[in-house]
Amino acid sequence: MEQIMGYCSSMSETTRAGNLPLPPMTLSRWGADADARELGDGIRDLLREVLGVSAESGVAFDPAAVRASPSRLDDDDIAALVALVGAGNVSVDDEQRLPRARGKSTPDLLAWRLRPEVACPDAVVAPGDDDEVAALLAWCERESVALVPFGGGTSVVGGLNPEVGRNRAVLSVDLVRFDRLESIDTESGEAVFGAGVTGPRAEELLAGHGFSLGHFPQSFPYATLGGFAMTRSSGQSSAGYGRFDEMVRSLTVVTPIGVVDAGRAPASAAGPDLRQWLLGSEGAFGVCTRVGVRIHPIPEVVRHEAFRFPDFATGAAALRAVEQQGTGPTVIRLSDETETMVNLATATESIGEQSAGAQSGGCLALCLFEGTAEHAGARHAETRDVLLAHGGTSLGAEPARSWEHGRFGAPVLRDSLLDNGALVETLETATDWADIPALRDAVAAALSSSLEASGTPALVMCHISHVYPTGASLYFTVVAGQRGEDPIEQWMDAKRAASEAIVAAGGTITHHHAVGADHRPYLADEIGPVGVAMLRAVKAAVDPHGVCNPGTLIP
Amino acid sequence: MEQIMGYCSSMSETTRAGNLPLPPMTLSRWGADADARELGDGIRDLLREVLGVSAESGVAFDPAAVRASPSRLDDDDIAALVALVGAGNVSVDDEQRLPRARGKSTPDLLAWRLRPEVACPDAVVAPGDDDEVAALLAWCERESVALVPFGGGTSVVGGLNPEVGRNRAVLSVDLVRFDRLESIDTESGEAVFGAGVTGPRAEELLAGHGFSLGHFPQSFPYATLGGFAMTRSSGQSSAGYGRFDEMVRSLTVVTPIGVVDAGRAPASAAGPDLRQWLLGSEGAFGVCTRVGVRIHPIPEVVRHEAFRFPDFATGAAALRAVEQQGTGPTVIRLSDETETMVNLATATESIGEQSAGAQSGGCLALCLFEGTAEHAGARHAETRDVLLAHGGTSLGAEPARSWEHGRFGAPVLRDSLLDNGALVETLETATDWADIPALRDAVAAALSSSLEASGTPALVMCHISHVYPTGASLYFTVVAGQRGEDPIEQWMDAKRAASEAIVAAGGTITHHHAVGADHRPYLADEIGPVGVAMLRAVKAAVDPHGVCNPGTLIP
Repeated sequence: MEQIMGYCSSMSETTRAGNLPLPPMTLSRWGADADARELGDGIRDLLREVLGVSAESGVAFDPAAVRASPSRLDDDDIAALVALVGAGNVSVDDEQRLPRARGKSTPDLLAWRLRPEVACPDAVVAPGDDDEVAALLAWCERESVALVPFGGGTSVVGGLNPEVGRNRAVLSVDLVRFDRLESIDTESGEAVFGAGVTGPRAEELLAGHGFSLGHFPQSFPYATLGGFAMTRSSGQSSAGYGRFDEMVRSLTVVTPIGVVDAGRAPASAAGPDLRQWLLGSEGAFGVCTRVGVRIHPIPEVVRHEAFRFPDFATGAAALRAVEQQGTGPTVIRLSDETETMVNLATATESIGEQSAGAQSGGCLALCLFEGTAEHAGARHAETRDVLLAHGGTSLGAEPARSWEHGRFGAPVLRDSLLDNGALVETLETATDWADIPALRDAVAAALSSSLEASGTPALVMCHISHVYPTGASLYFTVVAGQRGEDPIEQWMDAKRAASEAIVAAGGTITHHHAVGADHRPYLADEIGPVGVAMLRAVKAAVDPHGVCNPGTLIP
Repeated sequence: MEQIMGYCSSMSETTRAGNLPLPPMTLSRWGADADARELGDGIRDLLREVLGVSAESGVAFDPAAVRASPSRLDDDDIAALVALVGAGNVSVDDEQRLPRARGKSTPDLLAWRLRPEVACPDAVVAPGDDDEVAALLAWCERESVALVPFGGGTSVVGGLNPEVGRNRAVLSVDLVRFDRLESIDTESGEAVFGAGVTGPRAEELLAGHGFSLGHFPQSFPYATLGGFAMTRSSGQSSAGYGRFDEMVRSLTVVTPIGVVDAGRAPASAAGPDLRQWLLGSEGAFGVCTRVGVRIHPIPEVVRHEAFRFPDFATGAAALRAVEQQGTGPTVIRLSDETETMVNLATATESIGEQSAGAQSGGCLALCLFEGTAEHAGARHAETRDVLLAHGGTSLGAEPARSWEHGRFGAPVLRDSLLDNGALVETLETATDWADIPALRDAVAAALSSSLEASGTPALVMCHISHVYPTGASLYFTVVAGQRGEDPIEQWMDAKRAASEAIVAAGGTITHHHAVGADHRPYLADEIGPVGVAMLRAVKAAVDPHGVCNPGTLIP
């Protein structure tokens, strides 16, 4: 396993086994080893004093203890796969199978420490075009082998779980070879990418044409456009550029019964929207190989401003006014009192996501405005007027700049906190504006009481980071102390309590993390028996043998 | 039939047979008899000189010739239906069945003149709540009777055709009793309406709360919210308030296997979007009974401005810049050279949709801006800057005001033109910005050459009325002379040529008129065999007996 850790620590040509690169993230961490950072004394003292945890109290990851499940594929199987996609694009090596065995939820990360016997996909396969994917699907059906599409490996909902369903084995199908900008139409503002292109690579490819996609979820550094589409990702600039499902102009999914290209026109009345039935399908209908997205010129300017609100309800009403009036920020976020306080207290190492800057108490709101100088300036002025009229006080640009600077850092901090014995996780939902306060209170209470019952205080922080005319998302960050023999079960209890509170309060079980295995038990309640019948009917029609990601989505 | 015409001429308490009101439109016209208007001498001269047609050359509607197909339901059937929904809500009278037998396409309107033997639904039934709809569906399945939901009766694509499919009879299920504003949440900006509420009634119900829906398609005076949802309607203010499918926050569809309520949250990653699979389903999955929509405060101000562009390509590029920069008009439209010229020539009785005002040649663009005075003013200023920078010349407010005043008048004018021997119809599509010029040329050429082959000159006008970041809609208005024994076939040939041109050029077969029977032959090409398999699978799952609107949508 020393070797594995070496492979995982950075992504370079030397990490390749055949043509297959290893996913860049460390097995037991969100980021790469190189990204890991030590907590400062302040936070470590706080963890010890408030939560009673430390580096010594947590369970450390022992690479030497890790055991991959043996591959259930035989030599004939591998020969057949090699015949389909080429020798360099098939691997049964443990170092290839292990990093594709689990996602990056806190239970996943703790499992590397606590469950070293790892159920792995039986092989990793990287097809190079739609025909190879189709051939692979046909082989899977014939041979009763399931497959799980793999992009960036950033699922936090069990979307990568290598379940076999009613099959004898399961493949991890890595989209890494779908790595091109296939076409760009700067007049229409569209680009078509291979599904395996990562967030940073897409921005890099577009930048050469003076364009940007503008999709910045926390998974941005690692996740792929295919993954964004298949999970209905939503990025931090959603107020300006939309959710990813709103950016998708077209997409290609290779199903066991054929290839489907959805999205002939920007908008259509030609029946139910096929695009919207493929978006969020999480590999259960097939493998997404290509995504057409709307793009926009790289903004000429970015303007920043932060505001303080006396309390969450006042701040939420202000964000609502901004969105319902349509004043046009690119990013708009509001931390509740706890998140604001914690970030202020931990200053340079904020546990929540937003740096507090020079202010005290209340709730911090952050805005960014992008576009031409004139456009961004006008949007900024109108937004500021609304926020000030609704009880906000300007804190200047700095807190918003500071947040922007550290915007992808929270998951890396989670690694450090887990190392120091803390239990840290996030979850999210959305509802109508009128129901936002009750939903926030219900979820926070459920998390607190479950964790307190396990013997730890719990810090429950919340923010609004995606706004719509009729409602908003709520994103919760929880920090508690790991307790008992099995902190995975400790968290699963808290997660179950939160999920039940979301369902009872009428929120969606997931606003942008997707369904996966973890939210599947709650989907039937959300879409009802007719919705379930519709999903199952489509699944049966396009994947009659049940080979496509059987561990996810379908109730 | 004298009596029927009397019934149809206005909608009042005296028009009711039992509880069932008669649809307000005249059988052979879009509007009511009272709306009919005589053409001026100028247009009549033009029709005679250019198209060789006159009031004498057209076929007149003879109410006395109309024969409704006899009802295939027997007394036991009617007794059963009465037991389900009440005696006042069932009718087999011809005067009730005839106006629900056909929609309002030009072939429909000509059919009243040329095909007086009318295939009618076998009864009209008006259930009063979800339970009655569910009971009706169960009865239909048991008795092998199909049903066609009926809202405003404004379909222009054969969506109301009373096809029996594999059943022995067919009901028209009128949603007229779903006529309430069921709830309103002014904080979240949402209202839930019964599916039978018409456009004007919805605005009236919301106005009491200071709110508006802002959905103004040409069918607005008659069509219902359920119809808007089931056909993916798009209104003239789509740039500001979105297409109707974007306004829908939630909806209820009663299917043969149960009731489905879709849209738990404003946005979600909980799998494929169920809402978007019910929107546009045209009654093929069940009966839509309730629609939740996002609403907005009645705008404080409306600002108007019209612009002249030297040609269509320059104007289209300007509209594209407006939409891609997001300058925020509520309405934005551009007529091509022909539409602009015709409207100028016909001045007060424009054949196309936009009044030309004080300008000559080129292409007319119209904008409206709504909201608070400050918001509308800022949006207006930014939009004007972009349009002027892209080659526009301001024509002041008047042409835009004039268009707004007559915005629902075009279909009424069609009636008068049909009366005067002209062949008039509209059709529409959408595509990416880069493909707009080629698609416009291809459709115009197909229409012209088909109609010229039938022996008439053809005036083909086009405008852009719905814009998106990546593309736009194209709306065609055709005026030619009726020729030959059967001008219905004359038009069907032209429509077929246009549809084939749309498919060949990669446009969508319909941007906002829906599929119905007329576009069904082209849907399979648009969504491909996997898309067809998905649609059919859902149809089979929710409507296993095939009773739901068998004449529409599903290829």
